[in-house]
Amino acid sequence: MAAGGPYTLAELAAALGARLEGDPGLRVRGVAPLGTAGSEDVSFALGARHGRAAAASGAGAILAGDDVTGLACPVLRVQAPQTALIALLRLFHPEPPLDPGIHRLAWVAEGAEVDPGAAVGPFAVVERRARIGRGSRVGALCFVGEGARLGEDVQLYPRVVVRDGVEIGNRVIVHSGAVLGADGFGYAFDGRAHRKIPQVGGVRIEDDVEIGANTTVDRATLGVTVIGRGSKVDNLVQVAHNCEIGEDVILVSQVGVSGSCRIGNRAVLAGQVGLADHVTIGAGAIVTAKSGLTGEIPAGEVWSGIPARPTGEAKRIWAAQRRLPDLLRRVRELEARLDEMEKRTKP
Amino acid sequence: MAAGGPYTLAELAAALGARLEGDPGLRVRGVAPLGTAGSEDVSFALGARHGRAAAASGAGAILAGDDVTGLACPVLRVQAPQTALIALLRLFHPEPPLDPGIHRLAWVAEGAEVDPGAAVGPFAVVERRARIGRGSRVGALCFVGEGARLGEDVQLYPRVVVRDGVEIGNRVIVHSGAVLGADGFGYAFDGRAHRKIPQVGGVRIEDDVEIGANTTVDRATLGVTVIGRGSKVDNLVQVAHNCEIGEDVILVSQVGVSGSCRIGNRAVLAGQVGLADHVTIGAGAIVTAKSGLTGEIPAGEVWSGIPARPTGEAKRIWAAQRRLPDLLRRVRELEARLDEMEKRTKP
Amino acid sequence: MAAGGPYTLAELAAALGARLEGDPGLRVRGVAPLGTAGSEDVSFALGARHGRAAAASGAGAILAGDDVTGLACPVLRVQAPQTALIALLRLFHPEPPLDPGIHRLAWVAEGAEVDPGAAVGPFAVVERRARIGRGSRVGALCFVGEGARLGEDVQLYPRVVVRDGVEIGNRVIVHSGAVLGADGFGYAFDGRAHRKIPQVGGVRIEDDVEIGANTTVDRATLGVTVIGRGSKVDNLVQVAHNCEIGEDVILVSQVGVSGSCRIGNRAVLAGQVGLADHVTIGAGAIVTAKSGLTGEIPAGEVWSGIPARPTGEAKRIWAAQRRLPDLLRRVRELEARLDEMEKRTKP
Repeated sequence: MAAGGPYTLAELAAALGARLEGDPGLRVRGVAPLGTAGSEDVSFALGARHGRAAAASGAGAILAGDDVTGLACPVLRVQAPQTALIALLRLFHPEPPLDPGIHRLAWVAEGAEVDPGAAVGPFAVVERRARIGRGSRVGALCFVGEGARLGEDVQLYPRVVVRDGVEIGNRVIVHSGAVLGADGFGYAFDGRAHRKIPQVGGVRIEDDVEIGANTTVDRATLGVTVIGRGSKVDNLVQVAHNCEIGEDVILVSQVGVSGSCRIGNRAVLAGQVGLADHVTIGAGAIVTAKSGLTGEIPAGEVWSGIPARPTGEAKRIWAAQRRLPDLLRRVRELEARLDEMEKRTKP
Repeated sequence: MAAGGPYTLAELAAALGARLEGDPGLRVRGVAPLGTAGSEDVSFALGARHGRAAAASGAGAILAGDDVTGLACPVLRVQAPQTALIALLRLFHPEPPLDPGIHRLAWVAEGAEVDPGAAVGPFAVVERRARIGRGSRVGALCFVGEGARLGEDVQLYPRVVVRDGVEIGNRVIVHSGAVLGADGFGYAFDGRAHRKIPQVGGVRIEDDVEIGANTTVDRATLGVTVIGRGSKVDNLVQVAHNCEIGEDVILVSQVGVSGSCRIGNRAVLAGQVGLADHVTIGAGAIVTAKSGLTGEIPAGEVWSGIPARPTGEAKRIWAAQRRLPDLLRRVRELEARLDEMEKRTKP
Repeated sequence: MAAGGPYTLAELAAALGARLEGDPGLRVRGVAPLGTAGSEDVSFALGARHGRAAAASGAGAILAGDDVTGLACPVLRVQAPQTALIALLRLFHPEPPLDPGIHRLAWVAEGAEVDPGAAVGPFAVVERRARIGRGSRVGALCFVGEGARLGEDVQLYPRVVVRDGVEIGNRVIVHSGAVLGADGFGYAFDGRAHRKIPQVGGVRIEDDVEIGANTTVDRATLGVTVIGRGSKVDNLVQVAHNCEIGEDVILVSQVGVSGSCRIGNRAVLAGQVGLADHVTIGAGAIVTAKSGLTGEIPAGEVWSGIPARPTGEAKRIWAAQRRLPDLLRRVRELEARLDEMEKRTKP
């Protein structure tokens, strides 16, 4: 069984812990969605709502839970199809193996500690006193500043900047172009000019975080800007100085989080949401796309709009807005009718 | 006639296919707008509305269509002044000549194919099995990943990232800081954590596309994220996994396109527009700046607002909103008058 | 007195021009906020509203103005506590000393002029005819294009792109990932395709400007895009071609400024604000977060909303919007009551 396939269905069933309905010797060469899969592909139906598409698919086999029935092709039955899909994709697309060592065209300063089990790519820079843990990959053209620390199995894709002193945990993934630890945006106007307030704090990225391409996470003025364990940050997001992002938080693309915000565990900020500074988002709260927030959102609530309100209220307002031109007309009519009646009934 | 000028008006007229009104021997050294052009500059009047500024200009000569009249200085008459302006600007500002070859400080992996007529700049990285076509320029500090392909006459400005397997057509321009092919933002929550869904698809950038600085185009989960032929994407735009952007589409700065959106040919998304996932934009449709979209827009329509509506409707709502505080007052008055009358006319 | 501390309070008082209330021999080792400071830290209270937190702080000493009273610990009294805080932070966190010279792994083209008192980092590229002034730092992996000029004491953090011909004044700070001088976004549709209008103008960044991570400032079509003296630009901001940003302007993160806008001195655009092209913002005007602007804002005014209006008006509209669903109901009731009365009082 060679990494990357092809695989027999028996091999896949064993690897996924699936119950196989169909020919164990059948070989498949790739994974494809139901609509485009051919006879040498395995596809996937992640719930009963995909049953019809699954029945119509040309896939050689389908990964599904018990709720997808009536399939003519072989089926790999699993309890948790989405988790099994992740494993299936990795079987056909294994991570490229780590090739440890420092590329001869990298520049690692004296006094940096790169674990022999880590890899540093061409034209990467690792400054003094930086530490790179075992199994970590510093991609081509990355910059790891003085005293920065990467844990184990960290993946910096090409051209990431980790400024001085930034701390990164284990199994963190950072995509190209991200900048971790640039100065926070802080000035004091002294009557003549904006004077820069030195930004001398740090950034801590905890375990299992993923950070998207061209995202920026600023260092704290004093103290630390934190992205908590397991949080996922999309592309082009701004996290300002001194924010505390909790665990398993989702920040979708182009979100802007101003200084000193606190975001509770498992909260979700959808695309292009903006938070003013010192906003608090409770655990598990959701802010829908493009909303603008000041103040505080209680745990578990869903908010929307600019300025944001509980989503139920926002939706009633949006519905009413559609009727606003009509409402104006109706009020004008009411005024005319009342004028008329007042004239008519004048005592 | 040396590239970059100066040029006589006769030379310019010949190069532009223009009819010259004035002294063919007059020499000009540069191009400048009407307001700042001097006697050694050629300027341009792109329509009758610029006629007054053209008449007042100190330019040595003016490029214009037939609709600009009454000019005292020499005129280069053309049918399509905007197209002629492009040619005029290129005459005075020719593209720097391609200096083919691999810079001695670039790193090109074994098994990469760089056409001898292509140029690779200092500290650029070209990984295994990547292919760079004739006439293409890989700028300084660029990264071209394993198996990525660039067609002919592609221009990667310094510090572009093209991740593994990304396909780029001919005459594509990519500006500094853009990241093509980072992982899409996809996770499955398994009750305890957000599990990363491997993003194993690709990106295809078709011919004549231009992509702005620090823009991100994510690879598909499966399949391909596509930017269609001739489309132009501004700076800091996010195109998420599995999007299909049509041909000749315009995406203005800071637009965010979520996963699996389909945008029809010649559609225009103005600045800071955001699309939810699975949105469909019909061919030629326009979404005005800062709008937020879910669902679908028919071909050729113009939409605005958050949530977006046909622009006519949105404008009526915005107009009515201005009168909303006044409306509240009027309704209170109506209620009081009606209370009064009901009391008075009580049967 | 070693740079970076520890310092006695006498040393700090002398350095800050402060009046010391307390033991001049007491030593402190760092700066920390009131809430987390310990006995070896100096903290700060920037106004009377911090008086209670200051009184409860465990700090070894506190920097404060005359308006903070009743403190048990030693106090460093100053006239302007915020300005003194800046000096205090620099005392404990001095800028790393400049180590002049060109790193042996940098690439400086023939004909570039790097002042012997400037520093160029590893894998930085400085192209022909570029000039780097005394005391300037070109970080690792930066690109300085042909004919670009940096004044004195400029700080380019790692991985900044300065395209050809861009002019940067003195004491400018540019954070990682910023791209200065990419092409403006300009095309002419000729009936078949969007034809690129060559962007042959420049960019001028004046003295004392700071530019955030992954921000983009495009070159002008013709002429110059200007960021005026002392202006501060946050991360992920877009400044389009031909904009003229005044002096001491603040552009907060993710702001988008379209082509040919003019922003007056000391204006402030808060986070995620978007300007259409050719917008004029008067001196000292403020646009609140997420607003969208067309047209013109007079000097000194505060505007909000999409489309933006004077903030007072916008706030009245937002307040009224909350009551919109209720208003609809009330108008329906009015109509029913009036119907009833008209029936009853029919002549």
